[in-house]
Amino acid sequence: MAASAETRFELITRNLQEVLGGDIIKSVLDEGRTPKCYWGTAPTGRRYFVPLMKIADFLAAGVEVISMRLCDSLPEADVISAMQDVHAFLDNLKAPLELVAHRVGYYSHLLKAVFESLGVPVDRLKFVVGSSYQLTKEYNMDNYRLCATVTEHDAKKAGAEVVKQVASPLLSGLLYPGLQALDEQYLDCDFQFGGVDQRKIFTFAELYLPKLGYRRRAHLMNAMVPGLTGGKMSSSEVNSKIDFLDPPAAVRKKIKAAFCEEGVVENNGVLAFVRAVLMRVVEGRLARGIPLSQMQPLVGTDAPEGTLFTISRKPEYGGPSHFVSADDLEKSYAAKEVHPGDLKAAVADAVISLLEPIQKTFEQSIEWKEVERLAYPPPVVEAKKKKEKVYHPPPPGKGKNITQAAQIDPDAPKTELSGAGPTPESIATGLEPEEAKSIQTKSTS
Amino acid sequence: MAASAETRFELITRNLQEVLGGDIIKSVLDEGRTPKCYWGTAPTGRRYFVPLMKIADFLAAGVEVISMRLCDSLPEADVISAMQDVHAFLDNLKAPLELVAHRVGYYSHLLKAVFESLGVPVDRLKFVVGSSYQLTKEYNMDNYRLCATVTEHDAKKAGAEVVKQVASPLLSGLLYPGLQALDEQYLDCDFQFGGVDQRKIFTFAELYLPKLGYRRRAHLMNAMVPGLTGGKMSSSEVNSKIDFLDPPAAVRKKIKAAFCEEGVVENNGVLAFVRAVLMRVVEGRLARGIPLSQMQPLVGTDAPEGTLFTISRKPEYGGPSHFVSADDLEKSYAAKEVHPGDLKAAVADAVISLLEPIQKTFEQSIEWKEVERLAYPPPVVEAKKKKEKVYHPPPPGKGKNITQAAQIDPDAPKTELSGAGPTPESIATGLEPEEAKSIQTKSTS
Repeated sequence: MAASAETRFELITRNLQEVLGGDIIKSVLDEGRTPKCYWGTAPTGRRYFVPLMKIADFLAAGVEVISMRLCDSLPEADVISAMQDVHAFLDNLKAPLELVAHRVGYYSHLLKAVFESLGVPVDRLKFVVGSSYQLTKEYNMDNYRLCATVTEHDAKKAGAEVVKQVASPLLSGLLYPGLQALDEQYLDCDFQFGGVDQRKIFTFAELYLPKLGYRRRAHLMNAMVPGLTGGKMSSSEVNSKIDFLDPPAAVRKKIKAAFCEEGVVENNGVLAFVRAVLMRVVEGRLARGIPLSQMQPLVGTDAPEGTLFTISRKPEYGGPSHFVSADDLEKSYAAKEVHPGDLKAAVADAVISLLEPIQKTFEQSIEWKEVERLAYPPPVVEAKKKKEKVYHPPPPGKGKNITQAAQIDPDAPKTELSGAGPTPESIATGLEPEEAKSIQTKSTS
Repeated sequence: MAASAETRFELITRNLQEVLGGDIIKSVLDEGRTPKCYWGTAPTGRRYFVPLMKIADFLAAGVEVISMRLCDSLPEADVISAMQDVHAFLDNLKAPLELVAHRVGYYSHLLKAVFESLGVPVDRLKFVVGSSYQLTKEYNMDNYRLCATVTEHDAKKAGAEVVKQVASPLLSGLLYPGLQALDEQYLDCDFQFGGVDQRKIFTFAELYLPKLGYRRRAHLMNAMVPGLTGGKMSSSEVNSKIDFLDPPAAVRKKIKAAFCEEGVVENNGVLAFVRAVLMRVVEGRLARGIPLSQMQPLVGTDAPEGTLFTISRKPEYGGPSHFVSADDLEKSYAAKEVHPGDLKAAVADAVISLLEPIQKTFEQSIEWKEVERLAYPPPVVEAKKKKEKVYHPPPPGKGKNITQAAQIDPDAPKTELSGAGPTPESIATGLEPEEAKSIQTKSTS
């Protein structure tokens, strides 16, 4: 492998939890071709900090990235669960399809603004609407061929982690793995990227595409990152996620409300966010030759070389602390040398600084603002039902003072009542609630 | 309901085991419209005696009949099970699709010849190839909508009787009921016709089409008729079925080999064939004003008025017996007044006479002969494996002399070894092995 190809391969695969079929990517690079990456997402999301860091690597390595919305026509796990609730949606798919088109437009504006703010080239970032090929004769013929090859058992197993597990599952959930596999072929990608929660879907694709006579693709997987609230993320829980267009006050409020117990590193979404997003932003800027001195507030003005994150404190409280790695930060946090309040303040400042250029671009784009209005119309307010107050204790082993925490402490966990110990829901992709949503409660029976 | 509409409704629904939604057909007739019937079949068949008798009624009543091949593109139950065995098929669907097109051609020639020989008008008989609409955007969108509505459980239940039941079922079997339901909408039929083995598929369609915003269709069901061999019909067992193009010697040989125990009416495929086919042909001819004297050999020259079937015997063996109904014949048979050999001879003569005009049409049609060659090419002979001889005893309670029967008696049962009593496989649609094939062994565990 040539040196430049080696470097590109490094960049493409760094910081991942797992790589399947790396040889496929290596041979593409060796031939001097442009690897194509498929990143399939639902058109519901406006927040994708964690995977975007990795997409930035791909783009920096000259990879062509195709982002596609599976569910604009189809049984994407999230949308299915939504559809079950909203029967009106099923009666007329036309309106939602139009909405999806607007969201694709919104989304492409957003991602481009994000990467431009990070200094990452966007000319190789493409958006494909699923319905542009998922309803063609060829695709459906292949879907039927797959359905005549794949057993119910294999389909269920493949979708176990991403499809909602319910007592009476829908057929759409069984089609899901096959359709995602076919996307690889129809988008002609060399590898697909996703969280490790996609692993079974990915290995399913590796097994079945060759059975249809198509080539096997590589699969690159990000680690799962605990959510900001440390617990189950609910789409109805607005405070659990930060939107790229949230104003500074909203960002501060949400981070202040994040679950972040003093001295506890496990399931600490704020620490995880620093590792998975903020430190990678700094790394990326350093790689592009930007000096540390221009990276406030992520890194303090007086930060020594090698610093990846700074927590500023007044001199009377010990002054700023500089960290050269996530391990370094977590060690200090575990030793209670860093207080949650200071950590949160530093993260909030950093996030606000990251969002600022993106929001500026938004404000200056008439087109983007218009598409945002169409893509995310204000929800229709239904006649208010009187909401019964329910006491939600924090999960065992979390929270300082249970009674106080649940009622008044903004740092207290906002998790819903659930069993002891970490649940599948407590593992989520950082600030990507849209992805995390697809990880649903599994039946424990 | 007007008198003429009443008469047409009578003709459409006579001799059926069950009618669901008869009011739908009545209102179409009352409005003076032409009811549309959808009869979905696999393009594998060349023998459809039993349902054709009912289709003849529909045509005589002025119904528009659309015969469609589900599986030319799709998971039709028979074809799926074939596909499981023939992996080469899956690697390249192109060739089989072409084959299917030829079979549709063959089939339309055949059905027209059959109805013409019966004196039934064929101008309202249409053939639609499934792929002409099953791969369109609209159909697939509806399929996805269905898949997001139908549970795995409901789909499995609906297909239980027509989809092969195996330990590891394929997804295609789950899609099957929904696709058949959508066919009703896309063919714009007023009712669907099939055997009662289709009942759950039919009620599934009645439940789910309205959920997609489409109208509910009526469902007309023929009774199941025991197969000619009285046991499991296997597509590899050539002797179990009579082909419309079988020469007289082949017909005699097959009927001679049919299972037909003396004095036993139950599961007697030969008696069932007289009831479901031969007597109906005579009824139909009588209705069209053809005198009995012109119906040899189905009815003897000296038959009294009201005769529907005659068994000719030499005067020294008692002379001809005339029967006015199937019950009448079965009563005599049960009383051993009719010998299996005489019954079989009479049935063979009758079948040969029915096939004669069809085969004459075939011989005179260059086009039909050409399409037959393309549709049913001679099988590729594989290197012959030495077949091990296996002793298959007849099912308990059948056969006269087990040892002799299994080895030399051509009247002995050809059934495969199975449990006692009637099994799902022993119920089949007369001489329609292609349909019967879809009724597979269910796990008895």
